[in-house]
Amino acid sequence: MILALAGGVGGAKLVDGLAQVLAPHELVVAVNTGDDFEHLGLQISPDLDTVMYTLAGVANPVAGWGVADETWGFMDALEKLGGPTWFRLGDRDLATHVERTRRRASGEPLAAVTKDLCARLGVRHPVAPMSDDPVRTLVRTGGSTLEFQQYFVREKCEPQVQGFEYEGAPRAQPSEALRAALESSSLEGVVICPSNPYLSIGPILAIPGVPGALKRCRRVIAVSPIVAGQALKGPTAKIMNELGVEASPVGVARYYGGVIQTLVIDRADSRFAPQIEPLGVQAVVSDTVMQAQADRARLAAECVALIRRAGAQPQRLRA
Amino acid sequence: MILALAGGVGGAKLVDGLAQVLAPHELVVAVNTGDDFEHLGLQISPDLDTVMYTLAGVANPVAGWGVADETWGFMDALEKLGGPTWFRLGDRDLATHVERTRRRASGEPLAAVTKDLCARLGVRHPVAPMSDDPVRTLVRTGGSTLEFQQYFVREKCEPQVQGFEYEGAPRAQPSEALRAALESSSLEGVVICPSNPYLSIGPILAIPGVPGALKRCRRVIAVSPIVAGQALKGPTAKIMNELGVEASPVGVARYYGGVIQTLVIDRADSRFAPQIEPLGVQAVVSDTVMQAQADRARLAAECVALIRRAGAQPQRLRA
Repeated sequence: MILALAGGVGGAKLVDGLAQVLAPHELVVAVNTGDDFEHLGLQISPDLDTVMYTLAGVANPVAGWGVADETWGFMDALEKLGGPTWFRLGDRDLATHVERTRRRASGEPLAAVTKDLCARLGVRHPVAPMSDDPVRTLVRTGGSTLEFQQYFVREKCEPQVQGFEYEGAPRAQPSEALRAALESSSLEGVVICPSNPYLSIGPILAIPGVPGALKRCRRVIAVSPIVAGQALKGPTAKIMNELGVEASPVGVARYYGGVIQTLVIDRADSRFAPQIEPLGVQAVVSDTVMQAQADRARLAAECVALIRRAGAQPQRLRA
Repeated sequence: MILALAGGVGGAKLVDGLAQVLAPHELVVAVNTGDDFEHLGLQISPDLDTVMYTLAGVANPVAGWGVADETWGFMDALEKLGGPTWFRLGDRDLATHVERTRRRASGEPLAAVTKDLCARLGVRHPVAPMSDDPVRTLVRTGGSTLEFQQYFVREKCEPQVQGFEYEGAPRAQPSEALRAALESSSLEGVVICPSNPYLSIGPILAIPGVPGALKRCRRVIAVSPIVAGQALKGPTAKIMNELGVEASPVGVARYYGGVIQTLVIDRADSRFAPQIEPLGVQAVVSDTVMQAQADRARLAAECVALIRRAGAQPQRLRA
């Protein structure tokens, strides 16, 4: 069984690939909830939704969030009523948030709600939040500390980042699915998907017990979200530059240092391999840009093969 | 200034007529909130919305609730997620409930939210809830006591009614707009719109102080919601039959006895006039079925004229 750690769009694509090449019992997906927030009285879990919609085949392929064939009557009417419209909620997407909020208010944990919503949408592979406990990513900027969605959506990632806090993480427990996967004797390895290290994976690594379990696993591979100095989507490269970190796979390898054994980097970045290996991280060159559905499956199959090969040759990992 | 008391569809039509023939400063509309309820975590005020949408010219003319040109993406997606779908919420309509809920959660009273939502939709005449305090109409049936929307929507008014309770009414204060209108020296009279007496007007009359103020006003006219033994919309006649009350303007006159001086009845019911007058209620025959926009204005103008004539000839009312 493979455990995947994922955040938003890039992560969801690789998760989709893993779901194509692994049976439901061979995969567990643990998703960042650090950018969850309450808006309009609704409990919104953007990364869980992106993974769920992607696996269900209903994700909006253009926006990178929400569902395809969406309508906007709610948003249009809300604007006429003077309501807040900086966070866009489509009519169909809204049902997810309303139903999640309703069930959580009735006492169901986030993991249980997630499991059921995924089942309703036909998702066969297990998807779980990283935790049932609230963790909130805060962004320290020059002027002030912003809640993640304020930084990400309302301020369009414009403020210069000085650092992050994962509020609640020190007291959070891994979700039952994540804990069971990390402790399972069937765990073959872990794939850290090409999501933003600070915003998507950082919150998961901030949960007590998770980094230690990953270190013990020793078959953890990450796919670099940085290709040719840029993130394919989102502010990863901009944030790395602002933090004074090299926006390259080397910076990614340093961030994940001690936790991963292997970093899959794009062919465009093959020149960085010699700088990565001295960090104790094996660099594997591949095509990491997932444009078509088949790209997802191919990259996922490569990740699985790397883990299984490492399982057969454990000494390779201790290089 | 005229005060109108209104509930759902029939009431909203006459309110619309009054708004056509009276300037904004000449009309105050107080609306039933006994059928307000919480659903999907949202605070829903069906009668306030029907009046607001009708005055804004955006009401759905077919359904009798919600807005015209509605879309149903939310409801369709909610059904796929296994959420409760017995109460239909259109995408545009949903914005009203979400925004009302959000503002009330932030501490704004219902009257303030109502005032602002109406202003946003271009409603110029003042519309207020009967009270800022929660009043919940409960329907006693053979088997059990049902919340109003369960009776009305989910059970489709099928259970046999034994009586009503207006939970919270004994502790409710009239809203500021209703109280000010009832106490105003400018109050010329009150129009009880053709709404369900038990479900729409009964809750308003259950608020302490309201019946007494209406009695002191002495220029209160009602328009019968029963025409030719039937309600034009809704379960009024069915309920009257189940309560053993004659489903005719006579039954309506008895219900409002002591509060109204005049009952406007339809031409189809003119034969009932001799049975109404002995109850101390003047019966005025008119065409009460409001099919076109012009019907609303004509009936409203007749109601206003009756009040103003009564003001000129107060002894007529004491007949």
